[in-house]
Amino acid sequence: MIYITRRETFNAAHRLFRPEWDDSTNLQVFGKCSNPHWHGHNYVLWVTVKGEVNQETGFLINLKQLSAILRERVIEKLDHKNMNVEVDFMQGRIASTENLAIAIWEQIEDPIRQLGAQLHSVKVSETENNFAEYYG
Amino acid sequence: MIYITRRETFNAAHRLFRPEWDDSTNLQVFGKCSNPHWHGHNYVLWVTVKGEVNQETGFLINLKQLSAILRERVIEKLDHKNMNVEVDFMQGRIASTENLAIAIWEQIEDPIRQLGAQLHSVKVSETENNFAEYYG
Amino acid sequence: MIYITRRETFNAAHRLFRPEWDDSTNLQVFGKCSNPHWHGHNYVLWVTVKGEVNQETGFLINLKQLSAILRERVIEKLDHKNMNVEVDFMQGRIASTENLAIAIWEQIEDPIRQLGAQLHSVKVSETENNFAEYYG
Amino acid sequence: MIYITRRETFNAAHRLFRPEWDDSTNLQVFGKCSNPHWHGHNYVLWVTVKGEVNQETGFLINLKQLSAILRERVIEKLDHKNMNVEVDFMQGRIASTENLAIAIWEQIEDPIRQLGAQLHSVKVSETENNFAEYYG
Amino acid sequence: MIYITRRETFNAAHRLFRPEWDDSTNLQVFGKCSNPHWHGHNYVLWVTVKGEVNQETGFLINLKQLSAILRERVIEKLDHKNMNVEVDFMQGRIASTENLAIAIWEQIEDPIRQLGAQLHSVKVSETENNFAEYYG
Amino acid sequence: MIYITRRETFNAAHRLFRPEWDDSTNLQVFGKCSNPHWHGHNYVLWVTVKGEVNQETGFLINLKQLSAILRERVIEKLDHKNMNVEVDFMQGRIASTENLAIAIWEQIEDPIRQLGAQLHSVKVSETENNFAEYYG
Repeated sequence: MIYITRRETFNAAHRLFRPEWDDSTNLQVFGKCSNPHWHGHNYVLWVTVKGEVNQETGFLINLKQLSAILRERVIEKLDHKNMNVEVDFMQGRIASTENLAIAIWEQIEDPIRQLGAQLHSVKVSETENNFAEYYG
Repeated sequence: MIYITRRETFNAAHRLFRPEWDDSTNLQVFGKCSNPHWHGHNYVLWVTVKGEVNQETGFLINLKQLSAILRERVIEKLDHKNMNVEVDFMQGRIASTENLAIAIWEQIEDPIRQLGAQLHSVKVSETENNFAEYYG
Repeated sequence: MIYITRRETFNAAHRLFRPEWDDSTNLQVFGKCSNPHWHGHNYVLWVTVKGEVNQETGFLINLKQLSAILRERVIEKLDHKNMNVEVDFMQGRIASTENLAIAIWEQIEDPIRQLGAQLHSVKVSETENNFAEYYG
Repeated sequence: MIYITRRETFNAAHRLFRPEWDDSTNLQVFGKCSNPHWHGHNYVLWVTVKGEVNQETGFLINLKQLSAILRERVIEKLDHKNMNVEVDFMQGRIASTENLAIAIWEQIEDPIRQLGAQLHSVKVSETENNFAEYYG
Repeated sequence: MIYITRRETFNAAHRLFRPEWDDSTNLQVFGKCSNPHWHGHNYVLWVTVKGEVNQETGFLINLKQLSAILRERVIEKLDHKNMNVEVDFMQGRIASTENLAIAIWEQIEDPIRQLGAQLHSVKVSETENNFAEYYG
Repeated sequence: MIYITRRETFNAAHRLFRPEWDDSTNLQVFGKCSNPHWHGHNYVLWVTVKGEVNQETGFLINLKQLSAILRERVIEKLDHKNMNVEVDFMQGRIASTENLAIAIWEQIEDPIRQLGAQLHSVKVSETENNFAEYYG
């Protein structure tokens, strides 16, 4: 069993809030992350897949194919976008790093399985001081 | 003459556009950075000051005092904010990295002079792949 | 189950030695890390907690609360201090990265449990070339 | 149980290809990594060992001894070398990051056990955007 | 006057040697960098341009256009290539970081001027421990 | 004219204080950096030299020779040492980053000139958030 990780980046706006709460309650729970005018981050995404090494190619998976899945399913939908307003797979979810990692997992688990590998983990960093990891 | 640099970080939303242009023209000139729903970045700021070393303290400037100026004049105004909508010193300017570096220079040049040092440069990185520098 | 990591930094002096050994024996075992006049490092600490995502907030844990625990229990005690002389939870322990990771775990495991999360790992890097990890 | 990681670096040339395939087939499978004139990377290696902390020294393992094993068994053989042509333990293997991680594991597992520790993982990064991990 | 920097990366094989010298003399002068079987690096390139901010766009230069020049004139020629054998603008030059920075300057100075900006510096890092800078 | 930079690292203990002041005055001026029990840092040093490229070697300077000077004159004296107590060239100076950069310049300017190059700058970072630069 070998593990391969691909790193991608995207920039997005977001806001942490519950729409049924007023601004003052959102501010109390989410702090400055609830700013109604949005803020944003340079997110970094690490996707780790696992499986056997293909003896013919020496690869677990062709990273170009993995990167293509990540581009189509995740990066093109999130990059330079407003996560709360424009990203289909974040609708109805609070745009926390935790929920983002889980939602990205759901986007890519099946296509990676169709490549013959197994998704192991999704790691998303929001700033240099925090990141979330999800293992399914 | 010695040079001292302080690094600070802030996260903000922004959009590149001219309000008198329609979305299609803005898209043509500014690309995906013109997204009307905003996007955002983890900005990094490096402020360099220059001057003589104070023989009594061994400091050019007390970095706590420099950091306090940066916090009050720059970081608290930009961090977790929408640069186009909420930041007084960015009003009427396109929110490019170039303009941001110049605007930050204007915010801090005088207070740094009052500390007995001279502002040398303001460097702002928007992503790991680009940054602007301004020397006055 | 989701994992969230918070990164903190602190600077400290230390020395690797056994007080019952003479300087020459300490030098033989610990090398230049046994220098009786001390040396120091910029330590980086990553604390990972795990648990369920709270459906109301989208958070596993409020990172502000986690950071407050780390500040009070760890950073304020270690930052700009001599680890061997001044840090209560390092008394009677050799100031290795291994022991530091274990001691930090003991400081924060209970308060994190009281926040409703579970401490997963403590990672401490001493230099860019080495780090220790402890999982309890 | 504690985990200690040592980071080392090396620079090497390599090429991804099967000798029994022609250049065009290799190009189709391996892309620009199959360039017959070679290319190269600044590889980064993280070796993690696990075990009990020695109560006398506070160490799991003396990192100088671990580093000496890595230097002798891995770095001196790979650094400033052509991985396909000159590195004994890569002969007959496709020079992928996956195979490199596995081959390094085989080189160092026994000597680390003789130091009284257990090899936990070998992580090798080829670029800032990809890395492989092997756990035996 | 404002300065804007774009960062790009490429991976290449190279060797430091003079063809009219034998391997032993090359080894004496260039050390392990003269290995006849090649070695390689993950190079990082920072290109800094300077000029006035365009009042209409807030840009000194459109970074997409700068990046396109760098891709066409530099990255596509060097990436996954053997610098000594395959790169036209390195023929007849020793493949040192110094010469590489100068050669890249020559490749991009004119096209950048045609964009209405002025090339300020080319910085090339070969490893995390060394880099060259050229200002024309 | 070309510029070459070499990066080195060292770990040291220090304290900011004037010996003729009492602890309370030192605390007021230098803050927690005046702790009488010392603290420490992982310092990073960048030394930049400038000159003409040697047409025979393609080098401005052989980085191995530059690194040897830095090792002998700077790193071996500072690494794993107490800067205030044990480092000859820091005696009688406040151990600020500014003074450290100036003192390192004085240590290496002559030997670098004897190699046929010219020292351009000494940059020293104390933490990831601050650094000093000296140009003579």
